[in-house]
Order: sequence, then C-alpha cells, then structure tokens
Amino acid sequence: MPIFTAEDLKTVGFEIFKAAGAPSDEARLVSEMLVNANLDGHDSHGVIRVLQYVKSIREGKIKPGVKVEVLRETPTTAVLNGNWGFGQVVATMAMRKAVEKAKTNAVSVVCATNCNHVGRLYDYTLLASKNGMIGISFANSISMVAPYGGMERRIGTCPMSFAFPTDEEIPFVIDIATSICAEGKIRVKSHEGKNLPYNCIVDKDGRLTKNPKALYEGGAILPMGGEVGYKGFNLGLVVEILGGILSGTGYSYSKKFRGGNGVFMEAINVEMFMDLEEFRHEVGELARAVRSSKPRLGFKKILTPGEIEFKTRERRLREGIPVPEKTWVEIVKIARELNLDIEGLVKSK
Amino acid sequence: MPIFTAEDLKTVGFEIFKAAGAPSDEARLVSEMLVNANLDGHDSHGVIRVLQYVKSIREGKIKPGVKVEVLRETPTTAVLNGNWGFGQVVATMAMRKAVEKAKTNAVSVVCATNCNHVGRLYDYTLLASKNGMIGISFANSISMVAPYGGMERRIGTCPMSFAFPTDEEIPFVIDIATSICAEGKIRVKSHEGKNLPYNCIVDKDGRLTKNPKALYEGGAILPMGGEVGYKGFNLGLVVEILGGILSGTGYSYSKKFRGGNGVFMEAINVEMFMDLEEFRHEVGELARAVRSSKPRLGFKKILTPGEIEFKTRERRLREGIPVPEKTWVEIVKIARELNLDIEGLVKSK
Repeated sequence: MPIFTAEDLKTVGFEIFKAAGAPSDEARLVSEMLVNANLDGHDSHGVIRVLQYVKSIREGKIKPGVKVEVLRETPTTAVLNGNWGFGQVVATMAMRKAVEKAKTNAVSVVCATNCNHVGRLYDYTLLASKNGMIGISFANSISMVAPYGGMERRIGTCPMSFAFPTDEEIPFVIDIATSICAEGKIRVKSHEGKNLPYNCIVDKDGRLTKNPKALYEGGAILPMGGEVGYKGFNLGLVVEILGGILSGTGYSYSKKFRGGNGVFMEAINVEMFMDLEEFRHEVGELARAVRSSKPRLGFKKILTPGEIEFKTRERRLREGIPVPEKTWVEIVKIARELNLDIEGLVKSK
Repeated sequence: MPIFTAEDLKTVGFEIFKAAGAPSDEARLVSEMLVNANLDGHDSHGVIRVLQYVKSIREGKIKPGVKVEVLRETPTTAVLNGNWGFGQVVATMAMRKAVEKAKTNAVSVVCATNCNHVGRLYDYTLLASKNGMIGISFANSISMVAPYGGMERRIGTCPMSFAFPTDEEIPFVIDIATSICAEGKIRVKSHEGKNLPYNCIVDKDGRLTKNPKALYEGGAILPMGGEVGYKGFNLGLVVEILGGILSGTGYSYSKKFRGGNGVFMEAINVEMFMDLEEFRHEVGELARAVRSSKPRLGFKKILTPGEIEFKTRERRLREGIPVPEKTWVEIVKIARELNLDIEGLVKSK
C-alpha cells in the first residue's frame, strides 16, 4: 500500500479539485479536511472522497464556487442556503459565523440547508473549541435507521458532535452517530463477507441480525443501544429536528428532503459563564479523572473522546498516511482525465 | 393501594411543604411538579419525594424561600446561584429566564449552581416548548457510572432533555439518562430480589452483571449502550461539562462538587429560523412518519418520545394516582409531625 505525507495528499486533493473547477480557497479547504480525516484514522472520510466529489461535480450535484446566501439573520442566529456548493465550504462558513456571533453575543446557532456532504462534524466543533467556545453540531442525512421497535428506515444515522476547550494536548471532541454504528462499518464487513460483532441490523422480515448483507437487502440499521435502543432512537430524532427541520432541509424521511446534509452549528462563549482558563483546566481534570478508573475485565485502559484520533494523528504525521492501492490507482486515473500528472507531483514514501 | 386525584395529591404536597416552612408559591410549584411526575407514570419522581424533601429541609440541605442570585448575566446568558433553595424553584427560574431572553435574542443559555434535586428535566424543556421554543436541558449529579471500559464510578447518570413544539396533542419531549438505566430501576429490582433484564452493572471485580445488588457492593452502572457503551459514556461527559463545569458546580467526581444538580437550560426561538406553525407541523409529521414503520418481531407498535407519559397521564387523570400503602403511611406520619391532618383534608378514591 503506498504511503504519503499529509502535505503531499493535500496537494493531490487541491490540484484535482482545482482542475475539476473549484476555486483555490475551496479546493484547499476541502482537501485539507479530507486529509485531516486520514490523519485522525477516519479513512472513510479521507482522500477516498476525492473520487466521489469529482463525480458529484461532473454530475452537477456539487457546484464549486457558488455563493452561500444568508436567508435569515439576527445577531445570534442565521440560516444559510448553501446553494449546493461543497458541504465543507458551507458548514465551515456556518460554524465560523456562529463563532463570530458568539464572540459578542455569547451564544449563537447557525443552520444551513442545500448543503452537500459536510464530512466529519468533528472539524466544525473543533474549530469552535479552538476559539474558546463550546462547539455543538448536528447533521441529518438519508434515512437508514429504524425507530426503536421498528423494522423500516425512518431516520438517518444522525451524528452529533461536541467539542470543549481543554488544557490537554488531546482535543476533547465527541463525534458519534446516534445509530448503533456507521453505515461505512457495515459496508466494510459486507465486502469482507464477515459478520458484525453484535446485532446491528433489523432485516426485511423484522429479525435482528449480525449479517451485514441484510442491510442491503431491505433491512435497516438499529439505533444506538441496539436491542434496547430507545435512547439512541430519541437522540436521532433530536438530530432530525435540529439538523433537518430547523435548517429548512426537512427530516430525512420527508418529501421535502433532497439529500445532502441539513446542518445545525452552535457556539457557546465560555467566558460569558466563567474564566476560560479555569474551564479548560476543569475539562482536562475531568478527562484525567476518567482515565484514572481501573479498567474492567477485557480492557487495558480508559480512552477519552478524541484520544484515539490524537494518537493516530501523531503516528501518521511521523510515518505517513497509507492509501489503499485501489484508491490510489483511481485517484491517479481521475487526475489524468483532468490532465494532471499526480505521480510527477508527489511520491509515495 | 390508596388512589387519589391529582388535585388532592397537589394539596397534600402543598400543605406539607408550607407547614415545613416553604413560602406558598414554592410549596405550590414543587408539589405540582411532583404530582405531574406521578401523572406521567414516573412515580420515582412523584409524591414519594415529599418525604425526602421534608427531611432535607429539616437537615438544612433545602433552604425554602432563599433568594436566587444572578452571578453573571448578558442579554443571552446567565449564571444563577440557587443558594440551596428547592431545585425545582431554581431550575424553573433558570428556564423561564432562558425563554424570556430567547424571545428577544433568539437563543439563550442559563446555568444554575448550588441547586438541590431538580426532579425531571422534562418539566423545564416542556415549559420552553409551550412558549414556541426548543428547550434543551442537562443536569449532572453524584458519580454512579463507570467510563466505557472502566469499573469505577466517575460520572453521573447524566440526564439530557429536549422538547420541541409540535402540532400533536402528545408533547414531543425526550428525557433520558445517558447511563444504561436510572439508578431507581436498579434499586427497585434489588428490593424485589430479581435480576436486571440485561447487564447494567460492572461489579467491584470488573465483571459485567445483571445482579442489581452488585451496584451497592462497590459496583458501578454502565453507560448507555452497555457493553458497547462508549457513545453513552461520551454523552455523559457532555452533561458533566455543560451541566457541571459550565454552571460552576464542577463535574461530579471533582472535589468542587457539593451534591445536588448542576444545571444547563437552553431556549432556541424557532421563529428566528422559520415559521413556527410550519415547524410544529413538521415535528408532528416526523412523529407520524416514525409511527408508520412496521414493528419488528416482538413489538406491537412504535412509540414516539412523550407518548407513554401522555397515555399514562390521560388514564391517571381519569382513574386517579395509586400511591403505595407504605408511602402513604409515611406521608400521613410526616404531616402529623407538622400538625397537619392530611386524612381529614383528602380522601382516597
């Protein structure tokens, strides 16, 4: 498997998006966010998406360079119309706006609609926390998950993310789907022909199963909590309403919903509540207190949110990012179609 | 088991709290909220708490009639010092303040500290939703729950509540602990000498167990999701930070934490984002869409958040609220100590 530095992969994404018609600033932002996902170990949201995004640009689904419109605005809120630009561009603008508003007005919520795939919510809440804010983000997407006790798809995997300023080097960022697992993990197991570790799916006959193929044969993903998943289901509804309905996107099962992500971004200015350094210290202390618990049988240690990503990032910054051969071949091919000699530009380590 | 009307039980609570030293408005508010919990079927948060609260007043833990102080305030935020008054009084004031601020400033967060047990978060978020707002609430409390992969208590059961305006009669209110179950349910099973339906506890030796007694012998509750509970654990941390740290209460395992609840109340004014009637309709449509899913094997129908409570309330308004004999005897006894003839005041149906 070829291995590249993060900088080289950023160049690859930047050049390809630019050649596909994106303005430089958008090409740079999207490419950076994809490579950041690789650095954190979330390869499903990494450079593999270059292929999908170029395809979407060609099909007119992603419209690089369009202007994001402000549909409504108050000193503490806004609703943005992304006009189907890059999801990352729209969502970054939404969180930046929330942070700016919260600087003077303490709390702010900015929603966005007509927005393509925004990638990981992690990036946006982290952006807020780097500005001394608490970042909160929700996004709805296509219907994949059954209600608790149900067998038909009615809500999305409905991710939520929360980030907090901390005194540790490890960023304190939570980014979870409210379904029992992400669809990507089920797809991987299905390709491998392996079973899931526990019941993640209700099949088309209403039976719980570990068989990943059941999802693609008319099944649905279970909410977080699985067989006792009413809490995960309830939290999924929160995301459908805040990310979907409030943004004007509609909940995922509605006729109004047109794909992509409906987005909710909130920033809370810590200094309006308490001293920021004290807050950062207490959040760090909480992480340290939690890690001090003895592990239960079968576990070696306690991990806090963001810790695995931080360690993977340190390693990949040092050792490089492995890209599966098949993905790399497709990237080179798509670059060639855009008259780019990617292999002349960057070298595998 | 004696059965009472809601009105009669409200009178019981009101008279007892007043006799114990509470001003009339506080006695009325707290009593109403307890009986509302009974009406909704949450008897663990109902009139049984009259006993606990009178005991706390006698011990000086609850200080009825104290003034709630505003420690910090901006047009969109506030931090309240409850001065150890009734938790319900402080928390109601916090959410009312958030709603007032959001009326003119769209979004508001009000935190409160030095606050006794606030009861169900349900009441506060419902209050916001009745005012055309989205209500969001978090509260931390004593350490009971192990981190994911851990065996020692480090965080609380950390409830979260969200309420949304809807066009249905059934209020759309979510109110869940981020632990796998509430401590109350484990206590009940322990008293009954029965096992829990699934592993809810890690025992003092780090083993997962269905035995409820293990909690009281040095064990800890598992986070939501149980054996795969890292998401529930992460959400618990969110509550510890927003309810505990941001309010100035401290996270539950910290030296700073002095018991009671650290509270976070948020109101989001829907009309600053979209037409309120349209929002209410879409939230109702979401509930109806979800209920339209075929149930999986073992289920008869899909329930939306707030639906069980609504149905229980309808029945109990009609048929009355059953109070266990033992609880009633203790209530009569405590009333007598306060020179009240409760049995002369209300009659079992």
